Amino acid sequence: MFDQITIIGCGLIGSSIFKGLKKKSSIKKIITFDNNKSVMEVVKKYNLSDEMFSSPAEAVKNSDLVLICTPSSSFSSVIKEIKGNLKNGSILTDTLSVKKGQKPKLEDINWIPSHPVAGTEKSGPLAGQENLFENRWTIITPGKNAKESDIKKVSLFWEKLGSKVKIMSAVEHDKILSITSHLPHVVAYNIVKTVMGYDEKIQNDIIRYSAGGLRDFTRIAASDPTMWRDIFIDNSDLIIQAIDKFSKNLDEFKKVISDKNSKKLLEIFSKSKELRKSIIKAGQETDKPDFGRK
Amino acid sequence: MFDQITIIGCGLIGSSIFKGLKKKSSIKKIITFDNNKSVMEVVKKYNLSDEMFSSPAEAVKNSDLVLICTPSSSFSSVIKEIKGNLKNGSILTDTLSVKKGQKPKLEDINWIPSHPVAGTEKSGPLAGQENLFENRWTIITPGKNAKESDIKKVSLFWEKLGSKVKIMSAVEHDKILSITSHLPHVVAYNIVKTVMGYDEKIQNDIIRYSAGGLRDFTRIAASDPTMWRDIFIDNSDLIIQAIDKFSKNLDEFKKVISDKNSKKLLEIFSKSKELRKSIIKAGQETDKPDFGRK
Repeated sequence: MFDQITIIGCGLIGSSIFKGLKKKSSIKKIITFDNNKSVMEVVKKYNLSDEMFSSPAEAVKNSDLVLICTPSSSFSSVIKEIKGNLKNGSILTDTLSVKKGQKPKLEDINWIPSHPVAGTEKSGPLAGQENLFENRWTIITPGKNAKESDIKKVSLFWEKLGSKVKIMSAVEHDKILSITSHLPHVVAYNIVKTVMGYDEKIQNDIIRYSAGGLRDFTRIAASDPTMWRDIFIDNSDLIIQAIDKFSKNLDEFKKVISDKNSKKLLEIFSKSKELRKSIIKAGQETDKPDFGRK
Repeated sequence: MFDQITIIGCGLIGSSIFKGLKKKSSIKKIITFDNNKSVMEVVKKYNLSDEMFSSPAEAVKNSDLVLICTPSSSFSSVIKEIKGNLKNGSILTDTLSVKKGQKPKLEDINWIPSHPVAGTEKSGPLAGQENLFENRWTIITPGKNAKESDIKKVSLFWEKLGSKVKIMSAVEHDKILSITSHLPHVVAYNIVKTVMGYDEKIQNDIIRYSAGGLRDFTRIAASDPTMWRDIFIDNSDLIIQAIDKFSKNLDEFKKVISDKNSKKLLEIFSKSKELRKSIIKAGQETDKPDFGRK
């Protein structure tokens, strides 16, 4: 498929791709590059690149596929640095969580944007998991001028890593993710913020008894700050729409609690179980009980 | 410690206590009773009781400790049924998640309320886990007239199951739990409700890409509906206070997103990681990355 590929940005996603490809593909050379020197030291120490380069421009020059796995705020500067050095006919892809936003013009480049919907709350080059993408979806959002053959190649690339692939428009992608991912993160951050706003006196108790629900929110809210800052900026309009819907529902829910409306409460809670059943049926979660890891 | 104990209500908590005691204690006879006949069939089939009885009054009569593990809404009727049959000097405890509320007068009974802060999203007699309480906290909220020796016995009972024990007032308990457990559940239910409010057309996509955050909320929102209805009714005033704090923060957060305030966003996200670190340090969660169970 590809003889040589370059991964720019070696965080959770970049290092997971490297490890996954090493395990599952026969790609001859996989180059990893990161602008952060301390990350590059880790890359070297743990053999997360087949060759070491000192600039992104050098790192991409002979590659058939270049993946940009940096946060969105670094995307434009990376493009600027590598643009002139891309191999003729090579494909560029990325793993950004928002597909619209302030992207540079990429007319001369075969750019096939992709977004693997997978992750953990960990970040950095040591967070990589070779099976991170297995049974997860990768969404590809090709532009109007994308070549069918390039889309096919990028699809096969993700499938090689165990991912299922879906093609849709950038607009559709950003809308869906604002609901399934960005809103849950808003809420998780906000619950952590709320809890941290209580007196210091009560903080120890909050931590001690966090197994009653809070603990799981703190996991979601522990994701990479830079990545999430960029997502909230890039997709702010759709995220605000989702927050408005959530707030409206919360006001209604508050009234139900305030009224001690037993019937309505039971109805809300019973319905909630249905969505989970669908998610389990779709293979995006197991039915195994989770009683907190120890 | 106790020669015979009776567990009334054989859901997740009741069956976990039975299994835990069988594994870890030397209590001679453990009786399980549930008012639901289909639950009693499961109890019989899976040997979740050392003896079978046809009424709670019969089930408690020779026991040194009686645990009521039903939802709060069944508590009063259970008390009414067993009150006349309790053995002289026996201790009564419960596992309710809210400690104030409409409880019957229990002056003649040695009642030591307790709340094991542990659970999974599963319910019913087959959901029991013998190690559910290990390394979790149980909060004991004794009344003014409780005997020190009874408090001691109930503490030792939970410690036998692997739990750590903390004694506090009912008022303090309900306040802390409204923050660490009830508010997170409000928010989880509300996010699921919000997501289910979108067009049917988009529902399949929401399920498919739920691994980006939503999935984890649906787990919390899949807990037992009856139990949670009762909690929301019993602790409604403190839950509403917590919701108000959350809503105020959400409005502020929305403004930060709307302003695309990069510095402030990064600050919020970086701070969120700190609470999680404290929770891990307190042994209420591991630092292992969670990339979704498959």
